[in-house]
Amino acid sequence: MAPLAHQPIGVFDSGVGGLTVLHELLVSLPAEDYLYLGDTARFPYGDRTQDELRAYSIEISEHLLAAGAKLLVIACNSASAAAVDAVERHLAATARDVDVIGVLRPAAQVAVVASHTGRIGLLATPATVGSGAYELAVASLDRHVHLESVACPDLAPIIQGGFPFDETVIETVRAYCVPLREAQVDTVILGSTHYPLCAPILQRMLGRGVTLVSAGTGVTRTVERALASRGLLNPSAGEGSYRFMCTADVESFRALGTRFLQMPLGEIAHVELSARAAA
Amino acid sequence: MAPLAHQPIGVFDSGVGGLTVLHELLVSLPAEDYLYLGDTARFPYGDRTQDELRAYSIEISEHLLAAGAKLLVIACNSASAAAVDAVERHLAATARDVDVIGVLRPAAQVAVVASHTGRIGLLATPATVGSGAYELAVASLDRHVHLESVACPDLAPIIQGGFPFDETVIETVRAYCVPLREAQVDTVILGSTHYPLCAPILQRMLGRGVTLVSAGTGVTRTVERALASRGLLNPSAGEGSYRFMCTADVESFRALGTRFLQMPLGEIAHVELSARAAA
Repeated sequence: MAPLAHQPIGVFDSGVGGLTVLHELLVSLPAEDYLYLGDTARFPYGDRTQDELRAYSIEISEHLLAAGAKLLVIACNSASAAAVDAVERHLAATARDVDVIGVLRPAAQVAVVASHTGRIGLLATPATVGSGAYELAVASLDRHVHLESVACPDLAPIIQGGFPFDETVIETVRAYCVPLREAQVDTVILGSTHYPLCAPILQRMLGRGVTLVSAGTGVTRTVERALASRGLLNPSAGEGSYRFMCTADVESFRALGTRFLQMPLGEIAHVELSARAAA
Repeated sequence: MAPLAHQPIGVFDSGVGGLTVLHELLVSLPAEDYLYLGDTARFPYGDRTQDELRAYSIEISEHLLAAGAKLLVIACNSASAAAVDAVERHLAATARDVDVIGVLRPAAQVAVVASHTGRIGLLATPATVGSGAYELAVASLDRHVHLESVACPDLAPIIQGGFPFDETVIETVRAYCVPLREAQVDTVILGSTHYPLCAPILQRMLGRGVTLVSAGTGVTRTVERALASRGLLNPSAGEGSYRFMCTADVESFRALGTRFLQMPLGEIAHVELSARAAA
């Protein structure tokens, strides 16, 4: 059955990081309703196998579709790299005509268009850098672009744990910026949904001539285009609603999540998920 | 004596609000060094007389010049409205050739240029709205522009006191947006240095077609031009330093300030100030 325009957009991530993506969707597409699922019980996804990420993503997609989602956003770099195609195939095989949008390809697209010099930087977790997914995505768009990838093992944990920011953040960010400066990139992909919380510090270190591309920037344009092409943009005036689900403790999600969303979190429901990777 | 390029930029405000202005300066002009003074002992300036604001601003300017400031930024709407001319006259009379930049005129300039329809909104404290300073600034730039001013008595206190944001912020912002929507403005001046912390909520409510102009946006361009015209831009590569002074409790300033600066506060010194308005 084809979805209807008044239905919500489903967004999911391994935890609170994807709330930076939801943040940009809330600001840019305010008339839409949103359902967000943070799979906090199985966080972090960076340590999971590809098969696990596919199984989790299909399970969560089913959950969001059952709750009425008209489009799915995988607001997580690891799950986007591993599972967009798998979820698409799963939905096609079960005759559900719903778009599945990951954060990876849209960010690569925006970065390739934004760069004048063809020298793009990537800051991401070791798992995302190691997957080679951004290199593949960028090369498929323009094989003349050079991608300078920097694995940042410490940055997401510091951002998740550390507020107010102390000098550790500054020194950590500074170290990761050194290779980007040496490579003279003019555009940098924030390849983890945690990194927008460091965007001002990054911009100060890299210089304002460098364009920062977050997951949310790319996704927002792609989501809007996908909905428009199917006549699924919500025609309501004013702001829609947003509500949350998570798989671990609700109050921890609220405490941490407000900082990532930069808006109040209202209703948060606990849900149990149990998928395992197929043997 | 004319200042030198390696000297710091002095920035002051009645408290932590001006840190949103410093934030934009740190991101856009990273090579500069900054000295910030928050006059927390005499906060809030909105309750002070024009004479008091002039006396305080001259006293603080003297303090920052003695500490080596090459340019002064009054990062406070109330003090900008009351005291830019007075500080300029005071410096001229004492043969100090230093630029004094308030937040009000630069924000009005950016808004007038940004607006396509000539319908601009202003969100500000009752004191700032009541002063008529923004109406005067906008009218002096283009007398055909309509300024829709909304006095927001509750917004700065809620932002100062309230994190994580709860639904009160949403409802407060929503009420102040109603007249702006009805007036069909396409540009909104954030006429208090506290309001950038609500910018995402405001953008969501007003729609992405509306341009938000913060104090920092305007000031950054004006500061850069003023320094460039005198050959005073700091030629250093990399990031400069920033440090803080406040007139009340240092640890309260740090706790509150980090949220406004979105970067770690390092050194904060306590200073005593004692100016009174001339009888």
